[in-house]
Amino acid sequence: MLQRIISSPLRSPSAVKPVYGHLLKRTLASTLVLQNEDKKQTVLQLKTPKGTKDYNDKETKVRQSLFDTITRIFQRHGGVTIDTPVFELSSILSGKYGEDSKLIYDLSDQGGEACSLRYDLTVPFARYVAMHQIQQMKRYQLAKVYRRDQPNMRKGRLREFYQCDFDIAGQYDPMIPDAEVLKILNDTLDALEIPFYLKLNHRQILDGIFEICGVRPEHIRAVSAAVDKLDKVPWTVVEQEILQKTTATTDVTSKTVAGKIQHYVQFLSELPTTDLVETLERDDAFLKHSGAMKGLADIKLLLEYLDVYQMRDRVKLDLSLARGLDYYTGVIYEAIAEPSEGVGSIAAGGRYDHLVGMFSNSKKTIPCVGVSLGVERIFSILMSRLNMQEVKSNATQVYVISVGDGFLKERMALAQELWKAGINATFMYKKKPKLEKQWIACEKDQIPYAVIIGQDELDRDQVRLKDMRTKIADQRGGSILARKDLIDELKQRLSRMEN
Amino acid sequence: MLQRIISSPLRSPSAVKPVYGHLLKRTLASTLVLQNEDKKQTVLQLKTPKGTKDYNDKETKVRQSLFDTITRIFQRHGGVTIDTPVFELSSILSGKYGEDSKLIYDLSDQGGEACSLRYDLTVPFARYVAMHQIQQMKRYQLAKVYRRDQPNMRKGRLREFYQCDFDIAGQYDPMIPDAEVLKILNDTLDALEIPFYLKLNHRQILDGIFEICGVRPEHIRAVSAAVDKLDKVPWTVVEQEILQKTTATTDVTSKTVAGKIQHYVQFLSELPTTDLVETLERDDAFLKHSGAMKGLADIKLLLEYLDVYQMRDRVKLDLSLARGLDYYTGVIYEAIAEPSEGVGSIAAGGRYDHLVGMFSNSKKTIPCVGVSLGVERIFSILMSRLNMQEVKSNATQVYVISVGDGFLKERMALAQELWKAGINATFMYKKKPKLEKQWIACEKDQIPYAVIIGQDELDRDQVRLKDMRTKIADQRGGSILARKDLIDELKQRLSRMEN
Repeated sequence: MLQRIISSPLRSPSAVKPVYGHLLKRTLASTLVLQNEDKKQTVLQLKTPKGTKDYNDKETKVRQSLFDTITRIFQRHGGVTIDTPVFELSSILSGKYGEDSKLIYDLSDQGGEACSLRYDLTVPFARYVAMHQIQQMKRYQLAKVYRRDQPNMRKGRLREFYQCDFDIAGQYDPMIPDAEVLKILNDTLDALEIPFYLKLNHRQILDGIFEICGVRPEHIRAVSAAVDKLDKVPWTVVEQEILQKTTATTDVTSKTVAGKIQHYVQFLSELPTTDLVETLERDDAFLKHSGAMKGLADIKLLLEYLDVYQMRDRVKLDLSLARGLDYYTGVIYEAIAEPSEGVGSIAAGGRYDHLVGMFSNSKKTIPCVGVSLGVERIFSILMSRLNMQEVKSNATQVYVISVGDGFLKERMALAQELWKAGINATFMYKKKPKLEKQWIACEKDQIPYAVIIGQDELDRDQVRLKDMRTKIADQRGGSILARKDLIDELKQRLSRMEN
Repeated sequence: MLQRIISSPLRSPSAVKPVYGHLLKRTLASTLVLQNEDKKQTVLQLKTPKGTKDYNDKETKVRQSLFDTITRIFQRHGGVTIDTPVFELSSILSGKYGEDSKLIYDLSDQGGEACSLRYDLTVPFARYVAMHQIQQMKRYQLAKVYRRDQPNMRKGRLREFYQCDFDIAGQYDPMIPDAEVLKILNDTLDALEIPFYLKLNHRQILDGIFEICGVRPEHIRAVSAAVDKLDKVPWTVVEQEILQKTTATTDVTSKTVAGKIQHYVQFLSELPTTDLVETLERDDAFLKHSGAMKGLADIKLLLEYLDVYQMRDRVKLDLSLARGLDYYTGVIYEAIAEPSEGVGSIAAGGRYDHLVGMFSNSKKTIPCVGVSLGVERIFSILMSRLNMQEVKSNATQVYVISVGDGFLKERMALAQELWKAGINATFMYKKKPKLEKQWIACEKDQIPYAVIIGQDELDRDQVRLKDMRTKIADQRGGSILARKDLIDELKQRLSRMEN
């Protein structure tokens, strides 16, 4: 049923509402004075830690439905799931994230091993593959990760957030798993009805271009990080960063190097993918660079496969896409939501062939390719489409109501019968509840059926059954049923509701 | 399908197998030499942190099925779920767990707020209720909690483990929510086919007895903690602990006090519940203690309600049950698995009426009652019943196989058709896979159907469909179908499989 709510067409095409703003303000303001263990007066802040938040029952229901949809597509493609600890030995995480390592949360040294909260699901997966000597695996994982970043609630940037990852580990023929990972990403975003396109690039093409342009090997990662910002800042800012990082260290002037880089990552990237591929294949410097040509061959084969998967038109080769993380070695990609959704990148990934090897005793590695969905941004999009009032967070099907003298034990016995038959039922926890309050509770929780008992019904072994979703006048008191027929009648009605 | 595996009768009535032992040994042994960032040789331990473990795909499948069953029962009783951060401000957790506070994991002080990993789900829930000013809520939560305890893998005692909690917050008529929480616990363990009984007690009865016996108020918690051990150690050990904690601080001798306590918590507790209640009601000292009598009235009313819920015979009033945690104020209970399961306590809970008030500005509190399932022990029981070989961790329904010249793109296109129709399909990531290897992969992953294409089938717009679960000789090559009929045929067969 929620599936239907979530799959409904876009109600508001405007940018994402800042759904957290009001909540944040209220919670930050509510501090209170308590006595601590030393009997000194201290101020207890009644809030969650910076960059984290609670999700209420309706939000959690929407998130669960989002996870269910993602899981359904991940399983459609043969994925299995595993569970790894929320913290890892710090040594496992160190040296994997470049500059971003400073964002890792460490646990206190309480006289044991040095541990850190996981920063992503990729490094723990690579550790898992190495440790358990896995040869081949298609695994997905939906779990929380932790980054001590500057939080931005409005943009959905939190310190604790979910990632939904699909990764394929194993030695296979070229680009077949890469194509399937992109197909999985494509089908997941389609299932969530999020309009998007895919930026595609290749680390070997990118590194090749930088070498061709005259960037020294030791500067490639820094220049790469600068170029990666081209989707957010104008070229002049990127150029400035390149000049700072390469000045006086190359044979040619840095300005010349930057100009050559601009030719590739900005001017050529404006070409449609087919034209861009053809242009690179006519580029003498590019043709002579074996790494870059290997990367281009990968891209061409991948595009062929994506054609079979009927998603070729979703993909745009973009030479400015660099992706920050150190561990990528082959294709890299990013899914961008259409501008109307106002959130930008919603998924990213790539091939990382050496990460498992970093945890391996022998030189042997297991090549991997994967994708990570930034589910918090997708959640923001879904929330902006929904009327939260309409979201039903409980699964209750029947509310048991009494008319007259309370009949607590009679209501309990009736609920017990329903539970036993597998029907989700509840009632008011009062000895003698008012009829009006029972109706209100039933409506508030959007419970579809009410079963009513009073002295008359009890005397005659009957119940009244009322469909709460209809307001038809002539069923006001509900229809009268023999008590023994109630379960069958309810089961029939509930199964019709599901279809 | 896994539901069926899990619900199957006990295969081995013996004690739980030590399923983790071999794994632990192997992982602790596997360390390796790597170069760290300073290029110094260091030994990288390839393991998870102490007291944590990985769950592989089959284990995760069994756990997921366990969580699904628990969720189904929790929802049957009107529960909604929420999500709270995995760490809380340390000030929220402090002063809630008594002696056990030393087991709390703190995060490093990295220049922000002092935070700790959650120790249970109850305190974060109380914080949530207070912070969001909730008046009434039936909430369940299945999530990981963290304790820096001495791990015991064989007993399923870990530092990172799941709890499955159901709590009812709100002001209601006496014992109605308490009875439903016990009913939920009862029905959950029944759904998991775990034989058990319930120990029941009341904090006010317990505190009353200690006062009647002459224990000073400031010693009650310590004496209570000693008495709680009576299910694990003989009375003499408990007595020793009581004598140490009360010596020379009471008007009567400590030995006399201990003797009186033994009368109640050991001798009287051997009586059947009805006899025990009657005996207490004839006890002059007990009759004069208003707190104890209030507790007994609660218990009597609760037993009436449990009678309506048809679970009265599952419950045993046990005056030695004390429960360590500081925050309980009313009924307390513990579910004990039958000795044949070899794991002891598998769930516990009680009423805590003042915890929310500890987070509240006004004196106002929200009374709560709840239960926490020790899901790791339940998982151990399920694992000991299962043949893990038979657990299918993927959801794949069809394996696409080629005979002859590889037909990679043809396999891709066929898989694409199946995915589009909502069918879970996979194929071998090889350009020219051997037929034999494809059969092996299909069988290994327990995939029920194989769809086979070769030159003949492609020429004639046909496919072969083979049911992999039957070994009937005359379907060796599978049955031949027109390609256009494949999806319908598969959908029919798969829907029959589900029923």
